[in-house]
Amino acid sequence: LKCGGRKDVELNRNITQALIEIVGPVNFSDSLIDLVSYSYDASDHDRRPEAAVWPQSAEQVSRILSLANERLFPVIPRGAGTGLAGGAVPILGGLVLDLCRMNRILDISTADRLVVVQPGVVYAHLEKELSRHGFFFPPDPASGKVCTIGGNAATNASGLRGAKYGTTQDYVKQLEVVLPDGKIMRTGSRCLKSASGYNLTGLFVGSEGTLAVITEITLKIIPKPTSYRTGLAFFDSLETASQTVVQVIQSGIVPSILELLDDNSIKVLRQYGNMTLPDARAMILVETDGFTQAEASYQMERVTELFRKHGAVDIQTAVTSKGVEELWRARKSVGSIAGRLRPNNVSEDVTVPVSKVPQLLSKITAVIQKYGFPFVIFGHAGDGNLHPKIMYDRSDAEQKRNIKSMVAEIFELTCALGGTITGEHGVGLEKAPFMKLEHDEAALQTMLSFKKILDPNNILNPGKMDFHY
Amino acid sequence: LKCGGRKDVELNRNITQALIEIVGPVNFSDSLIDLVSYSYDASDHDRRPEAAVWPQSAEQVSRILSLANERLFPVIPRGAGTGLAGGAVPILGGLVLDLCRMNRILDISTADRLVVVQPGVVYAHLEKELSRHGFFFPPDPASGKVCTIGGNAATNASGLRGAKYGTTQDYVKQLEVVLPDGKIMRTGSRCLKSASGYNLTGLFVGSEGTLAVITEITLKIIPKPTSYRTGLAFFDSLETASQTVVQVIQSGIVPSILELLDDNSIKVLRQYGNMTLPDARAMILVETDGFTQAEASYQMERVTELFRKHGAVDIQTAVTSKGVEELWRARKSVGSIAGRLRPNNVSEDVTVPVSKVPQLLSKITAVIQKYGFPFVIFGHAGDGNLHPKIMYDRSDAEQKRNIKSMVAEIFELTCALGGTITGEHGVGLEKAPFMKLEHDEAALQTMLSFKKILDPNNILNPGKMDFHY
Repeated sequence: LKCGGRKDVELNRNITQALIEIVGPVNFSDSLIDLVSYSYDASDHDRRPEAAVWPQSAEQVSRILSLANERLFPVIPRGAGTGLAGGAVPILGGLVLDLCRMNRILDISTADRLVVVQPGVVYAHLEKELSRHGFFFPPDPASGKVCTIGGNAATNASGLRGAKYGTTQDYVKQLEVVLPDGKIMRTGSRCLKSASGYNLTGLFVGSEGTLAVITEITLKIIPKPTSYRTGLAFFDSLETASQTVVQVIQSGIVPSILELLDDNSIKVLRQYGNMTLPDARAMILVETDGFTQAEASYQMERVTELFRKHGAVDIQTAVTSKGVEELWRARKSVGSIAGRLRPNNVSEDVTVPVSKVPQLLSKITAVIQKYGFPFVIFGHAGDGNLHPKIMYDRSDAEQKRNIKSMVAEIFELTCALGGTITGEHGVGLEKAPFMKLEHDEAALQTMLSFKKILDPNNILNPGKMDFHY
Repeated sequence: LKCGGRKDVELNRNITQALIEIVGPVNFSDSLIDLVSYSYDASDHDRRPEAAVWPQSAEQVSRILSLANERLFPVIPRGAGTGLAGGAVPILGGLVLDLCRMNRILDISTADRLVVVQPGVVYAHLEKELSRHGFFFPPDPASGKVCTIGGNAATNASGLRGAKYGTTQDYVKQLEVVLPDGKIMRTGSRCLKSASGYNLTGLFVGSEGTLAVITEITLKIIPKPTSYRTGLAFFDSLETASQTVVQVIQSGIVPSILELLDDNSIKVLRQYGNMTLPDARAMILVETDGFTQAEASYQMERVTELFRKHGAVDIQTAVTSKGVEELWRARKSVGSIAGRLRPNNVSEDVTVPVSKVPQLLSKITAVIQKYGFPFVIFGHAGDGNLHPKIMYDRSDAEQKRNIKSMVAEIFELTCALGGTITGEHGVGLEKAPFMKLEHDEAALQTMLSFKKILDPNNILNPGKMDFHY
């Protein structure tokens, strides 16, 4: 792994002076506390950068990338650092480019069904502003309170509502990006549709900062439903619960949320989360929506019919709004509560075609049980996306080794089921070695050829995905 | 414009023998009737190819492209030839690769919400099969009865339902493509979502056969709504009607169809289409949908409220199903009926952000009136996509010259409004000279660099988009 043909990179005084000239002294740091903060994200990887900058404009980003290409140092674009795959970890050192100070919402146009934002805008902030107009931007990561739209676009993030509403990719209409050579480029169109030229926008979304730095994002927005129904069902077998999920999708109802939690998740919520839940083997949380109560209810009735038909032991639909909030809080906290069981954890986001969810669940459970780690599995079963979260202690060499082989087994069995190694977190460092399980040689070579043509010196986020120079 | 460094291409006996060996004699033709048939599509362009083949498999396509790269002749992938931009016209001659015999639906999985098809599957055939399962694939071109899914993917086609349901791009999850060098590659994932690697699928969709030949397409499908409401309103000014469209979208209702027709369209339908319509200046056709009548009706009520508020002179919503059918037939036939007014016509698909629709309409009308051609304007106003159709006589040199400058003016004013030169037809030959109105130099260079890296000899569909070698 090299940047500019070199493995060791140093930001000498000359370079840091040039950086300070570009962004100004208040937007530059090489203080230890910042470098330590920027050495990690929400993954299990870390490496300290040599410096960090907070650019204020595309022009500054352009000058920084030109400098990086001239002096050959790595530039690591960063949002809120909530990534679970190590995508923001400066694995070769170099310069962290934190976009959090480019955080303005530039335009909200409900007539055009568009919002234009800088990359540092926080998801929750955008949501709040949009909801004032009765609109929303559906892909809502669990980290929505802090994560940035730039990071979401860079990783093609999504969340609870993917099955019905799609992922970030489905909403990005236009980008302003800075290419590695410093060129500022506009992709796509402000129109709701366009068939003009190659879809560069789609290529940059999900490219994890390896092809360009995103400096402006135009998102399609959609009217926020005004009616919701929420349901909850418990099952005495995970197999039955997951088969029920398959039946729901097959029936032609796509709930806005369809979450599955395994028995360990239920235990964690009962024991550590202060929730009064039955001692069941699986739990399904479901939300339907529409403009009218009739529409939301109709869908919920179809879903609960299937719950009953498949022997759900307890079904609750007439939940109060306080109850609903509590439920979603429970669902959203299960990962972090489980995380407390051991010092470290890995949190995967393997995804399969929905019909394979039952097999994925039983196979993953068997693999983790073989290794004997504590774990929970929950996830967006409605789009086939599961989150096995496995707790361990990194200071124990044997555990560390075992976790590594266990994760490899999980990726292998997922891909054998026609799945993807990452539904929403991105590849980053974590899954780079597993790209070849999923993509054929021609696809990997094509991706690499695009990377090489745009970033011949490998200055942008080196080491991420499978691109070794 | 060159292929393999040459302007003149000839398929000598040697090459045609090799082609016959690959596809078999029944799947090869150089007969005059076939060559004439393949010399044009639904655009105003034509040029005869030297031969045509009907490949049966990706392997055959692979061998053909390898041969083309070795012997340096152009290969022009073709679906049903319904394109309006000249994308399938073999402008340098060469070999037409007609994919219509690869026309099997390989898999319909409602649990996975996917259908897998070969490129030659006809849209209407797919629709029929999907509707048996209660699902549908929304992007429905006006040519839906004959156009192929391969062509739709190659041009990122859409149709009446784009505002609510998006374009082909939003549904393609996976492709099998053959690269110009003959490599067979699989892109994307069968999963409903994936954040793994660069989005090659998105890049090939809409690339108009210039980067690869699509040999298999996996599409997301969605549950077909079970309730519909249809409405019709007349206005005494086009300006008011188009402002009403803006208000509808802004109100947070996205009808499944929201079509606007100008006074010339109404006249054509009255005079030549046998329709009894009021003598109004504009007409809006609207459809709302949902699982329940309550949902479809709620949306229709919001829309008709706005119609009333903006002074619609006549509103009909309680139309019988026979009436509804008649209306859609009218809408769908307005283009072809108008086309009879003169021997030739151009049919554009300029698109703007919805708030600019009123300006686009008045400016286009003024430009066409300045040139004095008969015309109609209709289109999918809900996503800003308008179809000005202008009739002329190609054998009249002055008319031909005037049409050319008029079309250029239309593209210029569209782009000045932040629009795109093509919402759904693609660039092809027709709009290649206008790409630079819409895309900046860096974007055009990036597109060209991808073309050059995948197709260095320019064998695949040369001359389309803006890529001159």
